Parts: sequence; structure tokens; C-alpha cells
Amino acid sequence: MGELTPELRGFLDTVQVGVLATSAQDGRPRQSVVYFARDGDDLLISTLGARRKAKDVERSGWASLCVMALEPPYASATYSGSAEILTSDIGVPTAAVVQRVTGLPEPPEPQTDEALAAVDRVVLRIAIERVTAVTHMETR
Amino acid sequence: MGELTPELRGFLDTVQVGVLATSAQDGRPRQSVVYFARDGDDLLISTLGARRKAKDVERSGWASLCVMALEPPYASATYSGSAEILTSDIGVPTAAVVQRVTGLPEPPEPQTDEALAAVDRVVLRIAIERVTAVTHMETR
Repeated sequence: MGELTPELRGFLDTVQVGVLATSAQDGRPRQSVVYFARDGDDLLISTLGARRKAKDVERSGWASLCVMALEPPYASATYSGSAEILTSDIGVPTAAVVQRVTGLPEPPEPQTDEALAAVDRVVLRIAIERVTAVTHMETR
Repeated sequence: MGELTPELRGFLDTVQVGVLATSAQDGRPRQSVVYFARDGDDLLISTLGARRKAKDVERSGWASLCVMALEPPYASATYSGSAEILTSDIGVPTAAVVQRVTGLPEPPEPQTDEALAAVDRVVLRIAIERVTAVTHMETR
């Protein structure tokens, strides 16, 4: 139940992908790999409004993201918190995630909310409240 | 809600680690990175009986493991199913997981159930029933 230390915050900037977990309607966990971006102490994920992960977040208001280094000893941590689906002012956060996917030095020009809505793009935002299951990292 | 194809089964042998998700008592997902081994269509994870993930499995009878390739485009799949905590005949499965952790060509000599019980070692077994969130893989 740790707090978000500078190291745990910085770790989020070293890996582009993580495993998102939400709670399905039957209470079972649902997991998928997602690209994400960090904005302060928030995690931003671009997805489609019709996706089950988006419906889970609308229903439960909570999500977690487990992030793992891609080489041994696989340093890792799980970041959890209140989550919501955003459809307004999502041009800039969507561009931030696209930059992570593409690896471009700058984010692309932000799209309008209307253009993103036309293709069902939404932003899943997690406000980090807890960091758990931290391995192979200094937590202070 | 796919079935376990030969490719999806084989993928489990290419990566040593995955993200385990269980349901916490409050219904929220709990995630952590674990080493695992495959035994037929079962996933084997060595953990401690006192760990929250073990308690979650005892209570809920279900778990999932999200496995991701460690380089772009990060091929991935989530394997879910009925899960249980084993304390008998766990010497061989525990040794199989230790082999994956160490990368040794052969598993170590199996320990007795009594020796493993003395250090609270248990095996979390998932019987794979569903494969979901498959990305960047042929599923046939």
C-alpha cells in the first residue's frame, strides 16, 4: 500500500506498455496489455468506448496497471486508483499516448474531441492512489 | 473467449514471467508479476500460502495470467480459468517453476511437501479455460 515515490513515478517513464486490470461484471479480473502515458500522478490510456475495459471502468470506477521492466530481474510495480472514461478535452492526452506507441520525439498534432468521438476513441484515466507488488526497486 | 490453440499454448513456453490477477475481497483486481511454468493446459505458480494472491484464489477459485512478449510489438494474451492452491505433491511443480526462474537446463531435485510446508510454499494452479485479449499473434 505504498505511496508514489519519485522512483516509482520515474519508472513509469521507462516502459511504454503495461497490463491493465479491471473488474468484469461477474467480479473476475479482466487483463489486457496497453500503451500508456503518465501525466503527473495520472495514468492515461487510449481505448475505444465500446471496449469491455471501458465499460468495466464506467461501472466500477477503479483500475490498476502493472508495469514491468522488459529484462531480468523484471522490476515491477502495480499502480491502482480511481478511474474514469474521458470524452472531453482528450486530444492532448490521446496524442501523448500515440507518441508513446510510435516513439516519435514529439506528440502528433492533437485531434478534436469530435474527430476522436467519430472513431469511438476515449481516454481511460487512472488517478494513482496506491502502489503495490513492488519488486526489484528501491522504494525510497 | 478463444480456445487454447497450439500457438497460444506454445507462447507460454517463450516467456518466463507474466502478470497474475486475482480478485481482492473488495472486488477490485490485484496484480503482481510472477514466474510461471506450463504443465499441459495448466499454469503453475509458486507462492507463499500467506500471500494475498493465495487467499484471493482460495476465496474466489479463479485467476488470470497476462503474458507479454518482451519486445515490440509486444504480442500478448490473457489466460484465465479456475484456480486453486495446492499443498500436496507440489515438489515437482515447484521445481518446474524454479527451473524457469533460474534458467537451468534441468529442474532441481524436488523437495518434499513437508520441506515446502515448513517455508509456507504452495502452488497456485490455473486450469486454462479462456484465452482473451490476444494481440499480434495468429490465433489459428
